[in-house]
Amino acid sequence: MEPSLDIDPSVLSLVAELVGTAVFAASGASAAVGKRLDLFGVVVIGVICALGGGAIRDLLIDAKPLVLTDWRYPLVALVASLFVFRFHPALSRMRPMMLVLDAAGLALFTVVGTVKGLDFGFAVYAACIVGVLSGIGGGILRDVLVQEIPAVLREDFYAMAALIGAVIVGIGARWESVIGHWTLSLIAIATIFVVRLVAIRYRWEAPKPKF
Amino acid sequence: MEPSLDIDPSVLSLVAELVGTAVFAASGASAAVGKRLDLFGVVVIGVICALGGGAIRDLLIDAKPLVLTDWRYPLVALVASLFVFRFHPALSRMRPMMLVLDAAGLALFTVVGTVKGLDFGFAVYAACIVGVLSGIGGGILRDVLVQEIPAVLREDFYAMAALIGAVIVGIGARWESVIGHWTLSLIAIATIFVVRLVAIRYRWEAPKPKF
Amino acid sequence: MEPSLDIDPSVLSLVAELVGTAVFAASGASAAVGKRLDLFGVVVIGVICALGGGAIRDLLIDAKPLVLTDWRYPLVALVASLFVFRFHPALSRMRPMMLVLDAAGLALFTVVGTVKGLDFGFAVYAACIVGVLSGIGGGILRDVLVQEIPAVLREDFYAMAALIGAVIVGIGARWESVIGHWTLSLIAIATIFVVRLVAIRYRWEAPKPKF
Repeated sequence: MEPSLDIDPSVLSLVAELVGTAVFAASGASAAVGKRLDLFGVVVIGVICALGGGAIRDLLIDAKPLVLTDWRYPLVALVASLFVFRFHPALSRMRPMMLVLDAAGLALFTVVGTVKGLDFGFAVYAACIVGVLSGIGGGILRDVLVQEIPAVLREDFYAMAALIGAVIVGIGARWESVIGHWTLSLIAIATIFVVRLVAIRYRWEAPKPKF
Repeated sequence: MEPSLDIDPSVLSLVAELVGTAVFAASGASAAVGKRLDLFGVVVIGVICALGGGAIRDLLIDAKPLVLTDWRYPLVALVASLFVFRFHPALSRMRPMMLVLDAAGLALFTVVGTVKGLDFGFAVYAACIVGVLSGIGGGILRDVLVQEIPAVLREDFYAMAALIGAVIVGIGARWESVIGHWTLSLIAIATIFVVRLVAIRYRWEAPKPKF
Repeated sequence: MEPSLDIDPSVLSLVAELVGTAVFAASGASAAVGKRLDLFGVVVIGVICALGGGAIRDLLIDAKPLVLTDWRYPLVALVASLFVFRFHPALSRMRPMMLVLDAAGLALFTVVGTVKGLDFGFAVYAACIVGVLSGIGGGILRDVLVQEIPAVLREDFYAMAALIGAVIVGIGARWESVIGHWTLSLIAIATIFVVRLVAIRYRWEAPKPKF
């Protein structure tokens, strides 16, 4: 299928990652605005939230941190944070859209992280761990810095949605020659995205401990 | 001595580490249950608490993170977390036992970390730092995530017990050919374990700053 | 100019870094004393605050962590923490001096980190990120551990002062053969130091988000 699109797949991949970076930066900057931090605080939290998941991933698999080898990532994170700083009242009226974008960022980062883990020769289960940490790591850093219990630990089906997608990539990789790399990635991204949105919409709840 | 046991030492080492992993996962999961997190939150905290100390150790000494190369560690952490989620009321009546197990986990992880630091060619003082961080790292991550000041900073003789054991391994390594690797490790593990339990039992207190 | 001083530049660099280490350890220990932690808590926070920024830097650029290869760093951090534990009432009357020392630590660590990033072959923008994280990383870890929103996110012109100095090093490196490595470093260190102190003195404030 890909050849018929006549688009270089690596461009698609880059665009997907940059969109995820912008979305996570916006999410971090929004949290910082909510804590009444000033311009610098908003930018620092936005950038760490956008780039932290990928940095954790690259440290674990011993890759050069992407943020230090490609200037487009910090630039996009910076611009998205400044954008939120300036336009946050309008954005707060678009909270549903932010949730959709955040689900997209989670889906993109998890799948990219899992693929990168496999590419670096790790076992399927290990690549899944790396992928899930890529997807949820930035948000965990954001919440630790603004002194909240990480949302990923409170929001049902956040880490779980990421795990489902990572497992699809990990298991599917065995039949990648049949399915095709991009089809597989798209299926996994779509699954995380849909599971996350359905979980929000229908307020799926994970079991709580009984007392 | 070891040959007379007729047990492969690496099996002993593996069992010790897996017990430590299970104990720390249970400790993290218990903290998460106390914060009324749901199933996913309990599992994420349990796994991070169990595997975080080792991950910090491996990043510092530039080893491949054990959690990504041996599936038994995340599996044990997962199972222990689920076990706590299901049976926590019974476990909370066993709090003394949990303290004993936690002391065992601290002892095992600290000694394993120090030995690994020496094996990777670091100086004695550096291996001790690596060992102490292995022992206390998981608990620090747990407390930061559930928004508590880390217990290791509040509980007297926690980091100190670990440091004593790490120093025994580090200094003793010079006479390892005489003492034997396993005897030395067992002495250090027992020392941390006993110091920690005696400190709890007799409420040893470190000096507080004077105001 | 350097030869006329007849001092080995690497000695100057070492002294600068050790002063920065002591200052940040004192800053961490002071925060821990304020939280009424005991002796061990004060030492652990002091050491992590002093060595955390450098450890983050070395993990990102894949260098051996300096704290594990040179025993002088942890020793200085330990001694400075113990000193604060013992003499903190006198020190609290010297809060203005602590702010000056902290500004000096920020300046020294940021410039050393940026230079190390360039030495490891990273692009200018990446070396600046590494340098700023070296300067602010220890303080972030300190505040996360004692459960405060990191001061760097609240204090105006803290991260910004570091960034200005890092950029001076990064841009100036092109003309290093003309300016000289030490002159360039000193200009950057002085700039961070002065900007930070002026910002404190005149209460420079960064813009806040509008609500």
